[in-house]
This record gives sequence, structure tokens and C-alpha cells, in this order.
Amino acid sequence: MKFRIDNLQYCNWSRKVFEINREAGLDAVHVTIVYHEDFKELLSETKKWEKLLKENSDLIFLGKNHNDIDRAKDENKTAIFFGFQNCSPIEDDINLVEKVHQLGCRFMQLTYNNQSLLATGCYEKIDSGVTNFGREVIKEMNRVGIVVDMSHSAEKSTLDAIKISEKPIAITHANPSFWHPAKRNKSSELLKTLSDSGGILGLSIYPHHLKDNTNCTLKSFCEMIAKTVEIMGVKNIGIGSDLCLNQPDKVVEWMRNGTWSKSKNYGEGSKNKPGFPKQPNWFEDARGFKNLEKGLKDVGFSEIEIDGILGNNWYNFYKII
Amino acid sequence: MKFRIDNLQYCNWSRKVFEINREAGLDAVHVTIVYHEDFKELLSETKKWEKLLKENSDLIFLGKNHNDIDRAKDENKTAIFFGFQNCSPIEDDINLVEKVHQLGCRFMQLTYNNQSLLATGCYEKIDSGVTNFGREVIKEMNRVGIVVDMSHSAEKSTLDAIKISEKPIAITHANPSFWHPAKRNKSSELLKTLSDSGGILGLSIYPHHLKDNTNCTLKSFCEMIAKTVEIMGVKNIGIGSDLCLNQPDKVVEWMRNGTWSKSKNYGEGSKNKPGFPKQPNWFEDARGFKNLEKGLKDVGFSEIEIDGILGNNWYNFYKII
Repeated sequence: MKFRIDNLQYCNWSRKVFEINREAGLDAVHVTIVYHEDFKELLSETKKWEKLLKENSDLIFLGKNHNDIDRAKDENKTAIFFGFQNCSPIEDDINLVEKVHQLGCRFMQLTYNNQSLLATGCYEKIDSGVTNFGREVIKEMNRVGIVVDMSHSAEKSTLDAIKISEKPIAITHANPSFWHPAKRNKSSELLKTLSDSGGILGLSIYPHHLKDNTNCTLKSFCEMIAKTVEIMGVKNIGIGSDLCLNQPDKVVEWMRNGTWSKSKNYGEGSKNKPGFPKQPNWFEDARGFKNLEKGLKDVGFSEIEIDGILGNNWYNFYKII
Repeated sequence: MKFRIDNLQYCNWSRKVFEINREAGLDAVHVTIVYHEDFKELLSETKKWEKLLKENSDLIFLGKNHNDIDRAKDENKTAIFFGFQNCSPIEDDINLVEKVHQLGCRFMQLTYNNQSLLATGCYEKIDSGVTNFGREVIKEMNRVGIVVDMSHSAEKSTLDAIKISEKPIAITHANPSFWHPAKRNKSSELLKTLSDSGGILGLSIYPHHLKDNTNCTLKSFCEMIAKTVEIMGVKNIGIGSDLCLNQPDKVVEWMRNGTWSKSKNYGEGSKNKPGFPKQPNWFEDARGFKNLEKGLKDVGFSEIEIDGILGNNWYNFYKII
């Protein structure tokens, strides 16, 4: 089987976006549905999604497990998997882990950029690792079947999570720091530990995570993948594009600031470039998967390897959630 | 003026308790009104307090600042100052700091025993100090007039808070670890840094913080105070008895467990001794202040020093909130 999976998108969802994802041949997309929203606010978001799923049932449906990716392939649809980029929806209550799973959550980051109740984010000065509450929550996520996602977490916290979690974890959207040393990207040591433990990395095409930002070339990106494979092997890598299609800039403000500061925080941006950055021309939307296919071939990957990177590796990971 | 202040009680509040505090001559009490309650749950607690304040207006009233301690003395009443033992009521929202101040909050711990969004608690393995959000919240607490209370925090977090806060901070209820090395007690280095910065320590009479627990003698407690004065001076010490009068054991379960674990946590207790410990016989309730007066005299303190320790030092601290 040949699956195409984008394991992180945070678009301004509309029929148009779902059509583009179909055109791109995506069988599954892991979508971020909340950042800093609490449980009650999460309920509002899932209601919005109920409407979207109903109105676009010819294009998408809510995925629960890997069988739904097969079903999507059969029905020419895209299975949508819900995920959170912060643990705010479970508040300080271990019992909400099961509740958010019932609402469809399949991936949850233990932290966004700052310290959470569970672990340390990559923008904090000191990383104390997974907390007492974090240990309990990981156990519960393992039990109910929510993937621990450490994309925005700091290094020690991520290593702790790998060790504590009884199931492999994911970094759904980040790149190796050997290629582009952004705060959000990951060290080679961490990536090796991740793949050794059966975990998976979704490579990001968000410009702030790319060498040369918007001007990053397809060739540079695919050469980076080849080097990453030398560290992680070819079966623990996928795509998590972090595509934020059609999002207004106020959304990136919310992502970065939530309600934690009275002054404005620019995260990966800057005062002069506060908004969403422009995508590179080879990945303006998910149809760029076709370019990735060509680019990966050009740097020497075989068809089986390319299918793995562009979807089958994620499919296999979904089997063990 | 000669004030008597107990700067931490968490009793099962009733007319009887307020009468005992009056009999003890207390002009002011800092009362814990919440632990892990969120903002909405805090509102329920303040409503309960509105009723208590109304029904017992001949004994107590809600204090806002140090002038209310003078008023209490004049009117033979006890001024009640609200405090939180965790930062849960401000959730992840900097704007709630001002709101909780409007509701009467004058002291807020940045952490209970676990990691919070603001800092690290004394029961975590690693202490990463005050977080990004914590820095912002301390600034806001300084602005609106809520005291940073680090009673349950870990050491580096406390040192960070002392450094970051523009106003002196408090440890409302803890003892020196040189006397009794409990996790909740504080190192001599920390206590010296606290007093050098104008901060204040409220000495606790909660048995788990005492040498020999319930069997701790008044003499031992007062000798400890004398030694602490050698480190901190005599003006930066008060009483924060941590008295939990008439509380049922389910309350100590809530304090320790909140909703963060599926298994039971015993905190300072143990499986065999899960409940509230018995008070030492010289401080079964606030009337024990009379015993403290005698005990302090017996170890050589002057009347002025005793008045400082039993209330005037806290009064002076309230002036700079």
C-alpha cells in the first residue's frame, strides 16, 4: 500500500483546504485543533469540527485509528486525526486525558514553547524535564491511546518522555538542528534516541524551521532528509508540514502569546516580521507532496523509501498508538 | 502598638474558630481560601467567605491593607486577609492576577508541592526556577499588590523569585531545615537571602514541620527561633502557624492530590499516617500565642522582640505590600 500522510497541519479550515489535501492525495492529516484552550474551550472547537466534518463528508471524516487510513484510501477521502499543541485542555486533571481521547484526540504535546504542568518547552531557560504530574499523564496517555508529541519541548524533557513512555513517542513537526539551528529544531543525539526507541520525526516545512527560511530549496530540504536518515534510519521519518494555510496573523499571535504575557512575544518571528512567514515555492500547500516525491528521488531515495517518508512510516506508527 | 498576627491558617471556618482567634488576641489572620481551585471555583469560595464575613461581622472583616490591622485592633476584631496556596486560580491568564486581587487576594504561592506554570514545587526532582510566565506574573503581582509566597516552592525557584520580585517576598509558613530537615523547610542560605532582601518568614507549627512532630516542645521551638534570628535578624520573622483546626482528613487528601494523580499521594504524611497530624499541646489552637509569648521570654527575647515576632514584624511587612 502507498499512503500519503501529512502529520501536522494547522490551516484555516475550509472546503477549499480539504479539496487541496485531496488533490495532494493525502489519506490522512493530523490537524491541530487547539493550543492554549482549556477543556471548555476545546469543546467549542470540537463543535466547529463536527460541522466541518458533516459539511465536507464527501472529502473528510474523523479518524480514530490506523484502519481509518485504509478506509480513507478506499473511499478517496482524507482521515482527520485531532491533536493538541499544548496540554491546556486537560488542565490540572488526570481524568480529562480519557475525556479528550473520547473527543477524538490522538496526539498531545506535553508543552508548547513555555513550561507546562507536564514538562518544559523549548523557549524556557532551564529544562527540568517531565514533572510529577507529567509522569502520571504519560502513563494515562499510553493507556488510552494518545501519542506523546514533543515537537515544542526542550531536550531533557523530550529524553525523559522517551524513557517514561511505554509506547514510542512522536515529534510531529520539527527538523534536525544540524541543518538549521533553530530553537524548535532537534539535536542529532535526541533524534537518534528517538528512532532507537521506535519514535518518529515529522519533518517540518514551516519556514522558520528551514535553512534559508522561505528561500530554502527543495534540494537542500531533501539532502537534509538524506542526512537525517543516516542518523535515524529511513523508517522513523515522515512529514509533518506544519502548514498554516490561509491563517490570519492574529492566529500566530495567539499561538505565541496565549494569555501569559502583557507584552507581545514574537516567538520564532521578530518585531519586523511578526506574521506567518511565506511558504517556499515548492510547498505552498499540500500539493507540494508531488515536489517532495521528485526531490527525494533526485537525492537517491528508492520508491519504497519515498513511500515510507511520505506516508507509510506514519501509517505504521499509527498501528502502535 | 502591639499586634498579634497569625499569617497562615487553614481552618474549617466557623464562628467557634473566629471566637478562638479573638480570644487569642489575633488582630489579623492570613487565611488560605484555595489550593488547586481554578478561577471559577475560587468564585464559589469567595461567596462562602462573603457569607462567613457577614454572619460574623462582630468578630471579623475582610482586610485589604495594613490600615485594616489598625482598624481591627481599634474595633476588637480580626482582619481576614485572603491567600492562595497554589496559582491555579489565575489559570494561564496574566489578566486574572488583577481580578483575584480585586476579589481580596493578598498572598499567592507560585507553587504548591508540584511544578506549576510559574515555578517548581519542593516535591519535584529538579527545580528549573521561575518560568517565562512566572516572570510576567511576579511583575503583575508586584504591580497590583499581591505578595509572592514561596512556602511550598523549591530552593532555586525561591531564590529566583527573590531576585525577580521588585517587592520583598514571603515564606508564610515553613521552618528552618537546620532544625528539622523536612522537604518543606528552608535552608539557612535561603533564609539569609530572604531576610537580606527584606523578605519575611512565618514560622510554622504544623507538626510535619516540627522537630519531633507532635511531641515537639515549646522550648525546642523557641530555641529554634533564637537560632533563626542569628541568621535572619529579629525583624524578618513572624508566625504562620499553618493551623488546620477541625479539618476533616479528606481536606488533606485534596491538598496533596488535587486531581493530578490516579494513585494516592501522602505528601508529608505516610500510608500509615495519612490524615492531619495532632497539634503539640502548647499550640492546639491560636490561644497558643500566649504560650509562645512565655516561651520566647524564657529563651531570652525582650518584650519588643517578642511583639515583633508575634505580630509587629508582619504588620510592618503589610505596609510595603
